[in-house]
Amino acid sequence: MKNDSILLDHGSGGKMAHQLMHDLLLPLFRDPVLARLHDGALLETPQGRIAFSTDSFVVDPPFFPGGNIGDLAVNGTVNDLAMCGARPAFMSLGLILEEGLAIETLQCILISMAQALERSGTRLVTGDTKVVPRGTADKIFINTSGIGFVPPAAHISGDQARPGDCVILSGNMGDHGIAVLTQRQGLDFESDVISDTAPLHAMVQAILAAAPPVHVLRDPTRGGVATALNEIALQSGVGIEIDEHSLPVAPAVAGICEMLGLDPLHVANEGKLLCLVPEDHASNALAAIQRDPFGRAACIIGRVTGDHPGRVILSTRIGGRRIVDMLSGEQLPRIC
Amino acid sequence: MKNDSILLDHGSGGKMAHQLMHDLLLPLFRDPVLARLHDGALLETPQGRIAFSTDSFVVDPPFFPGGNIGDLAVNGTVNDLAMCGARPAFMSLGLILEEGLAIETLQCILISMAQALERSGTRLVTGDTKVVPRGTADKIFINTSGIGFVPPAAHISGDQARPGDCVILSGNMGDHGIAVLTQRQGLDFESDVISDTAPLHAMVQAILAAAPPVHVLRDPTRGGVATALNEIALQSGVGIEIDEHSLPVAPAVAGICEMLGLDPLHVANEGKLLCLVPEDHASNALAAIQRDPFGRAACIIGRVTGDHPGRVILSTRIGGRRIVDMLSGEQLPRIC
Repeated sequence: MKNDSILLDHGSGGKMAHQLMHDLLLPLFRDPVLARLHDGALLETPQGRIAFSTDSFVVDPPFFPGGNIGDLAVNGTVNDLAMCGARPAFMSLGLILEEGLAIETLQCILISMAQALERSGTRLVTGDTKVVPRGTADKIFINTSGIGFVPPAAHISGDQARPGDCVILSGNMGDHGIAVLTQRQGLDFESDVISDTAPLHAMVQAILAAAPPVHVLRDPTRGGVATALNEIALQSGVGIEIDEHSLPVAPAVAGICEMLGLDPLHVANEGKLLCLVPEDHASNALAAIQRDPFGRAACIIGRVTGDHPGRVILSTRIGGRRIVDMLSGEQLPRIC
Repeated sequence: MKNDSILLDHGSGGKMAHQLMHDLLLPLFRDPVLARLHDGALLETPQGRIAFSTDSFVVDPPFFPGGNIGDLAVNGTVNDLAMCGARPAFMSLGLILEEGLAIETLQCILISMAQALERSGTRLVTGDTKVVPRGTADKIFINTSGIGFVPPAAHISGDQARPGDCVILSGNMGDHGIAVLTQRQGLDFESDVISDTAPLHAMVQAILAAAPPVHVLRDPTRGGVATALNEIALQSGVGIEIDEHSLPVAPAVAGICEMLGLDPLHVANEGKLLCLVPEDHASNALAAIQRDPFGRAACIIGRVTGDHPGRVILSTRIGGRRIVDMLSGEQLPRIC
């Protein structure tokens, strides 16, 4: 690259935009379909069902312990597809860059994206870059949209939870939210909390193989486990009961949450999933999750009930019961 | 909606985000797949080829004569799919909103999107909303990604131009760029130029029916007709010759371009296409385009040649010849 920072010209569609494409993007994302530089990607698909998902990422700061906006964006869309039971196949990349962004910063982010794509076996096949004047965006925003193929047997959806289902959580809560929080301006935490950003497609394929009648899969990102469970309870018209003593939280995350008055149930995760599965398949599903490198701390945190439809109830450590609500108000803006 | 402007809470993934979804988005975009509110949309696809495209829109100002960022975003992705020969089928919506954006403004934009989707027969099936603090984005940025189905016979690509092909342009150049320009702060043009933003999928289907061996379709957006033709010349390894006297430009656009020193060949269009087709099918293709409501002013503007591969040459009105280059430098930032 001839320049060391992003200029408005890089978003013009003209010569500089082509230079950015040929010098920076194409060498990192080597794909014959992308390299055709057509307005869209032409892709062969088998007959059947696809999953289609989109997510924009505006995380502040773009680099945080355990990852950056680049791998976060790839993993985020990989996981949205995986939560449909799909095998991720194709991804698009929409960049909105602020004039003046260092090319080196952009390159670091794109390298992380390329590595995350590689890990998930997903192909970047089409993209778009816009540049806006200084002060009209904050460094970099990324949209990733994705397409995955859904196996015929999978019927997974937020409205499929049934009384008797076990609720499995694949690991500790709140790592991503707290990792980003510790990097915010004005906060100065000595902490070794790192984001859990990770691709969950392999874990999902293992669950589907071990426990085919899985009912619901959801990654508890913004709004945390509490919001995701409330959504499932509402969509399925069931109640959900969870046990406080079984909720997995790393001690460092629990400590920071206590200090700041945050509930780990409301803090974002980027590499965890909730799996709701009939009781007689729960141990198989749990074992499959625990065999995955991102699921070692998985455990059963609760159960679906026919009582109090639409509500999530927590049995507390001291033997009480309380309603767990959706996140109300914004705890941590720009967490993803 | 209880509030009259967008709050950070609307992007939290929690209660306010759900309210925005249920009160504003779902009533406008009535689709059973979208209404399931899953992480991704599950869609049936026939066997064969799909086209997949993404585009982010950051146009400033978001409202301009002839349209706004909403219909622009839908038409833009519809057209990217159409340029692959595809029939647009599904779209995703990624919103990045600035805290403080008036709900009424957002609603106007979303209504335009819903109408544009309706016109193009495209279903909005999945979406995502982020809100960033005041001053970290400019009002609203929109990403639309789309999936379309490609008929088996279509083999359209930027590298398919062949010597002898006629170059058809579907109408006047530069309307979109100049319409946006006249609305910029500090500029005060009395002008009746309106954006040409329009969906071109029906025109493309008519072209494919009338002239099946069409080689290249491209919509000359950022960088204008000159940049699009240069891309085609490079990708196909051919030369392209165009005639200045045949280039269609509305008098008002020509006047403003002359005043500002802009070349209409470099100004953005949002409802025009270039069609490169073998000579013996050119009159059929041209007639099909002219029958479309957005193609009445279509004409043949030039020809593909085996000479000077990778270059576009203009025969000027006064009998000279000059190289037409890609846009170099940014004329008009944030035109789309």
